[in-house]
Amino acid sequence: MNSRLQFLLESLRKLLRRNAISRVRKVLHKSRNEDVASVMRYLDEAQRHQVFDLLETNEDRSETLAELDENLFIEIVTTRPVEHMAQIISLMSVDDQTNLLSHLPEDVKVEILSLLTPEDVAELQEMLDYDRETAAGIMSTEYFSLEEDSTCAEAIEALQHAEDVEMAFYIYVVSRQEKLTGVVSLRALLMNPPATPLAEIKTQDTIYVRQDQDQEEVAQLAARYNLLAIPVVDDKQKMLGIVTIDDVIDVIREEATEDILKMAGADETAYDDSSAWSNFRTRAPWLFATWMGGLAASVLIGLYEHQLQKEVALAAFIPIVLGMGGNVGSQTATIIVRGLATGRVEYGLGAQYLVRELTIGGMLGIFYGILLALYSAVRYYDGQPLALAFTVGLSIWASMLTAAIVGASTPLFFHRLKIDPAIATGPLVTTAVDVLGILVYFLFAQWFMEI
Amino acid sequence: MNSRLQFLLESLRKLLRRNAISRVRKVLHKSRNEDVASVMRYLDEAQRHQVFDLLETNEDRSETLAELDENLFIEIVTTRPVEHMAQIISLMSVDDQTNLLSHLPEDVKVEILSLLTPEDVAELQEMLDYDRETAAGIMSTEYFSLEEDSTCAEAIEALQHAEDVEMAFYIYVVSRQEKLTGVVSLRALLMNPPATPLAEIKTQDTIYVRQDQDQEEVAQLAARYNLLAIPVVDDKQKMLGIVTIDDVIDVIREEATEDILKMAGADETAYDDSSAWSNFRTRAPWLFATWMGGLAASVLIGLYEHQLQKEVALAAFIPIVLGMGGNVGSQTATIIVRGLATGRVEYGLGAQYLVRELTIGGMLGIFYGILLALYSAVRYYDGQPLALAFTVGLSIWASMLTAAIVGASTPLFFHRLKIDPAIATGPLVTTAVDVLGILVYFLFAQWFMEI
Repeated sequence: MNSRLQFLLESLRKLLRRNAISRVRKVLHKSRNEDVASVMRYLDEAQRHQVFDLLETNEDRSETLAELDENLFIEIVTTRPVEHMAQIISLMSVDDQTNLLSHLPEDVKVEILSLLTPEDVAELQEMLDYDRETAAGIMSTEYFSLEEDSTCAEAIEALQHAEDVEMAFYIYVVSRQEKLTGVVSLRALLMNPPATPLAEIKTQDTIYVRQDQDQEEVAQLAARYNLLAIPVVDDKQKMLGIVTIDDVIDVIREEATEDILKMAGADETAYDDSSAWSNFRTRAPWLFATWMGGLAASVLIGLYEHQLQKEVALAAFIPIVLGMGGNVGSQTATIIVRGLATGRVEYGLGAQYLVRELTIGGMLGIFYGILLALYSAVRYYDGQPLALAFTVGLSIWASMLTAAIVGASTPLFFHRLKIDPAIATGPLVTTAVDVLGILVYFLFAQWFMEI
Repeated sequence: MNSRLQFLLESLRKLLRRNAISRVRKVLHKSRNEDVASVMRYLDEAQRHQVFDLLETNEDRSETLAELDENLFIEIVTTRPVEHMAQIISLMSVDDQTNLLSHLPEDVKVEILSLLTPEDVAELQEMLDYDRETAAGIMSTEYFSLEEDSTCAEAIEALQHAEDVEMAFYIYVVSRQEKLTGVVSLRALLMNPPATPLAEIKTQDTIYVRQDQDQEEVAQLAARYNLLAIPVVDDKQKMLGIVTIDDVIDVIREEATEDILKMAGADETAYDDSSAWSNFRTRAPWLFATWMGGLAASVLIGLYEHQLQKEVALAAFIPIVLGMGGNVGSQTATIIVRGLATGRVEYGLGAQYLVRELTIGGMLGIFYGILLALYSAVRYYDGQPLALAFTVGLSIWASMLTAAIVGASTPLFFHRLKIDPAIATGPLVTTAVDVLGILVYFLFAQWFMEI
């Protein structure tokens, strides 16, 4: 938290404790609503409601509400008079309304919809029907479009009277059938003679997305072409809205967080106020794969009980053989999963990456294998030091090599099947490495130690 | 890769193979330079150079070069006549030049600098001195500023004649001493009477960053306040440049990738054409911590050799006890590390998160402990089933609980010490969980099984 927010939070806490209402009002008046929203999560529930009440206008309340974390806006909306909330919500932009309503409990949503104007409801219903993860799901319907034969002067005139147009940097040029045909930048408007028709200065090769394209693709396009907003069209090229850069940033952020958490078998609820129980349910299934892998390892070890009895030193190296394999496996898997997500790893080049990871895994295996072989020979010099050294050294090498192959090929394979590699890779790699590691270990042991 | 790029890549490959030079030229002419840069990495080196040569103008070459991945632009710049490259580089914006030059080998950089104009070099030298991870390191010096007494009409007029101004959405208002005093949006210019002085319509509360602020903070500000560009000032509030939203997106992307790779003990070189050997050197140290943890576990198991001899079934459950602990530990650590990076977890609330992760870890431990206790009692019913069940059940529980504590507290602790939690957490958690897991396991075994 930066010092500006820290200061705001401390002032609010102090003044609320002293019940210095008019001074709280003054502080809120001087603050940006985004900042107020940011610090609200560190206040307790009663203070949060007080601050929300003490905001100057319903516009401020609406802006603050739009910036709040999901669990907080649900808390506020569901515990206050629905009429008042409907008034505040009606002041939001359609995309913020959609986002908020789609997260509310069904009954509250219905009640609020019943209090909005029929036009608002019609537009909202349409937006609520779109999949939240698509271009249409994150678009704003407040954009600025004109027909092709409008002139620059008309465009400037229209722009001066436009209201409610979210960040107008581009004028979208449409045909009479509302089909998107090009884009004109605000700067181009200023640089050309007033009488120039937009058709003459519009871009020829417009980047746009279809309504059902994944939000991640939209973010990639905006980043690649450095666009401030991307138009969204339907199957017939009719313009529906725009996805603005601030939403693109949110998408990039969220998708990165989602990927990181997914690879660890968790999700966003880890940060919510949701109960430990709901977290338990999210995280338990992923661990079940680890449990199954561990169980399989234990069954296998059970089969070699006789050998272990003869050479109990073998037990001491099981954790390190599995641990090194497991970690190389997850290292490799992480590199490939993130590479696929950012486009740095291409499925078409899969074989190339496989060879590369195999080489690195093999090199790491040789290094750590030799290291452990030396240690084991010194530690158990009174038994069969050479045989044990070969067993543990080669096992580490084989386990790390196998892990690199499994870690690199699993995400590529899932990507091919269009299954999200971030979810599926972790547990599979763990399990495979556990089972293969133990097998390899006891096979080498039987071979070298004649047990 | 989207179908547009796929198509471009395939056309280029086919035409280059056939040596259909004029058709390659035509394809390149119709394509966006960003797209050409994107597909160049999938061509082989000879084709890459051919494409670069066949681009229409030096402007196209300069734009393409600016969009290339680091290893590719180094390849191109270092293998071609330095005079030609200097010409092309001189066409780039200063921030692109800085980025490119800072990645080149020292001798090539010096040679290119010697071929640029003295003014360019002066500006570049200054930029090259800034830390690449700060606001100044990623800023562009091409922005649009005017003094406070300029009018809207003058601003529009000046804007129409401005060249080389990267994405002008804001007019920065400065004092006679070049100090930043406010911002005027392009839209505000159009909405106000031509004679209005900028001082009257500028924002009162301008968001800006100091030159040495971390790039991640800049990205967070831009995202929080939905800004298209953030002005960068020096200690005396003098304006130095702007960080534009496209650079902010790159920062957010890179930082997320960096964090993900760091947690797995790897870095960006994993995607470069750098040798397997250099990858080995990056990844080996992180694995060394795992190796040490495994070794410590093996030493501990060695101490309990006598007990293992008596009850060899114990060996079978070592991997699952350590594996479950390790995975809960890394799950918890991932949640906290990412939470700290995105601001979802605040250090001030550390205790709260600790309690929460402890509860979840405990619940998961109880669940999987009972599951494993049941299995062990059934599997080894002919030994001391009850004692073994208690041993493994309680060990899993204790190991998962410990792992949750270590996994949650380690990143919070490193964050407090201002050490990047993403680097340090992984190895420490693995090692701690291995050692503590084994200790707990054999302590329970001694207690319940009287060995």
